[in-house]
Amino acid sequence: MDIEKLLPPAVTLDDENSTLNIIDQTLLPGQLRICGLRTIEEIREAIGSLRVRGAPAIGIAAAYGLYLSMKNSPATHKSAFLAQTQTNLEYLAAARPTAVNLRWAVERLRRAAACYPHEAVEELQQALLKEARAIEAEDAAACRAIGEHGLPLLRDGDGLLTHCNAGHLATARRGTALSPIYCALEQGMQLKIYCDETRPLLQGARLTAFELMYAGADVTLLCDNMAAALMEQGRINSVWVGADRIAANGDAANKTGTLGLAILARHFALPFYICAPSSTVDAATPAGNRIEIEQRAPQEVTELWYAERMAPPGVGVYNPAFDVTPASLISAIITEKGIHRPPYKF
Amino acid sequence: MDIEKLLPPAVTLDDENSTLNIIDQTLLPGQLRICGLRTIEEIREAIGSLRVRGAPAIGIAAAYGLYLSMKNSPATHKSAFLAQTQTNLEYLAAARPTAVNLRWAVERLRRAAACYPHEAVEELQQALLKEARAIEAEDAAACRAIGEHGLPLLRDGDGLLTHCNAGHLATARRGTALSPIYCALEQGMQLKIYCDETRPLLQGARLTAFELMYAGADVTLLCDNMAAALMEQGRINSVWVGADRIAANGDAANKTGTLGLAILARHFALPFYICAPSSTVDAATPAGNRIEIEQRAPQEVTELWYAERMAPPGVGVYNPAFDVTPASLISAIITEKGIHRPPYKF
Repeated sequence: MDIEKLLPPAVTLDDENSTLNIIDQTLLPGQLRICGLRTIEEIREAIGSLRVRGAPAIGIAAAYGLYLSMKNSPATHKSAFLAQTQTNLEYLAAARPTAVNLRWAVERLRRAAACYPHEAVEELQQALLKEARAIEAEDAAACRAIGEHGLPLLRDGDGLLTHCNAGHLATARRGTALSPIYCALEQGMQLKIYCDETRPLLQGARLTAFELMYAGADVTLLCDNMAAALMEQGRINSVWVGADRIAANGDAANKTGTLGLAILARHFALPFYICAPSSTVDAATPAGNRIEIEQRAPQEVTELWYAERMAPPGVGVYNPAFDVTPASLISAIITEKGIHRPPYKF
Repeated sequence: MDIEKLLPPAVTLDDENSTLNIIDQTLLPGQLRICGLRTIEEIREAIGSLRVRGAPAIGIAAAYGLYLSMKNSPATHKSAFLAQTQTNLEYLAAARPTAVNLRWAVERLRRAAACYPHEAVEELQQALLKEARAIEAEDAAACRAIGEHGLPLLRDGDGLLTHCNAGHLATARRGTALSPIYCALEQGMQLKIYCDETRPLLQGARLTAFELMYAGADVTLLCDNMAAALMEQGRINSVWVGADRIAANGDAANKTGTLGLAILARHFALPFYICAPSSTVDAATPAGNRIEIEQRAPQEVTELWYAERMAPPGVGVYNPAFDVTPASLISAIITEKGIHRPPYKF
């Protein structure tokens, strides 16, 4: 069982054809279709509409997207090239405001170009490409390291709960929260994995259940509101989720519903683990109350996926994409550097 | 604003035409269609498939259903009549095992017939009808009384959270958890009502949002997993839900997701109220761990409502219809008799 061999990566660059290839995650689990994106508008749309999603994966997609957008730049001077890079960077970063990896990745590219010691536009383009490739490679390595660091927190026979998708499809490879689980499965551990469907966009049902079943894991799907009953029955040993932004004090923004799970885990005295590459830690955000939370369209709740409208026309809708779990409810944060315990210092 | 005048009752008997009229709740919010049921098979199917749902409403539906099934009984002797009543009662009661009101209602009819001092089958039929009408009238009165008892727990400007549908559509009239809210709205209070969509069957989105909007209330819909974030933001003052069975010690079975909300309410120090007629209290069940929890079909989670299948084929599914909230997490239980506080004695 090796998820990297079973499933193609969520995002890859085909530089020869100037195409960003993504698995269109809005079509899963029905169709596993690779979709080629060429323009910056297509790439931003794919990020905004969650064709590609997961904080690390959208960082990689945006990095390659910025490179592709500058690959045929008409700029002839470094200053014009950097100005256009900045414009394109802002355009991509605005696609989703909460995930820090998105802005972090495109800023890294801009800096690589700005600091590049030569002026030739072709070389600046290569500097962008090199940096984007480094981001992808570092994420793959970070995910593997998160798996190895997290593995000792799992025991044969454990029942695990996960929320949303923090797996292979959310990263360069293997995932964050699912990476220790893949490591454990590769070692032959028996795990019973429960995954929240994760309303409104059903990343748990559509993506996590899909990739875990692809890997041959024992997966049980539940509605988000059933987690408490599972815990009460003693079926869960620990909870594993990813993060879209971690504040300097350890407060963590992740998919809506994470805060509730953390509170339930505390109530039932279960460990609650967050797994993320250290690029998800935003030193500039001191605490969770400073994290901007993306509000998404009401139609995601009332119409999306459904055969017909599922709520009365005109009803008000509360649809935050994320919530913030305070550090006090997080048992450990696992990054590629190791297991961080409270009080959090990164 | 009078919900009783705005919406027809969820269940009514048309004795002249030997028909049980129900609002087919599986068609809401798209269509408000009254559906006439004649046979016991149709009535059991309507209960099992949640065309009529809500513990009090299914009690009323089953009571009228039992009466209709015996209305043209070929029995010529009381003993044969009672034997057939018992058979039909078991058939109806098996439609949904958790709601105590269902068995309670049909048992009440059987007892009314068994204790009836005469032998004539026509009179036994009338005894069944009289008892069924009493059950409906008592529920209507209980719901109104619950509203009046619960009203002092509400304040102008409150933000309230409710789950599933414990409203007009779940009862003879007005609802249980929604009854105090209707009383408050009738008095001109401004309330901001948040309703969980309530996966998998979306009773919150389809039914609660529908009836509250019908009544002109300020309603905001959210996914079940967003309740924690709402509470964390201070937007909720109290949580209001119904119950399908209350054990003698106050433990309460209600729609899946209720336990999680009770834990969140405790975490955020918010009052958590359960409203139910006293017929929901099952003295024969000492504690919640003795309540049988109905498991429902996996397709409710993976397919129902959706335009296409929303999870990989073959995935395991955990789909309990109810969970049990321990009495220790319930701030008060409001019945037609008044406000009960812990330790619960009914």
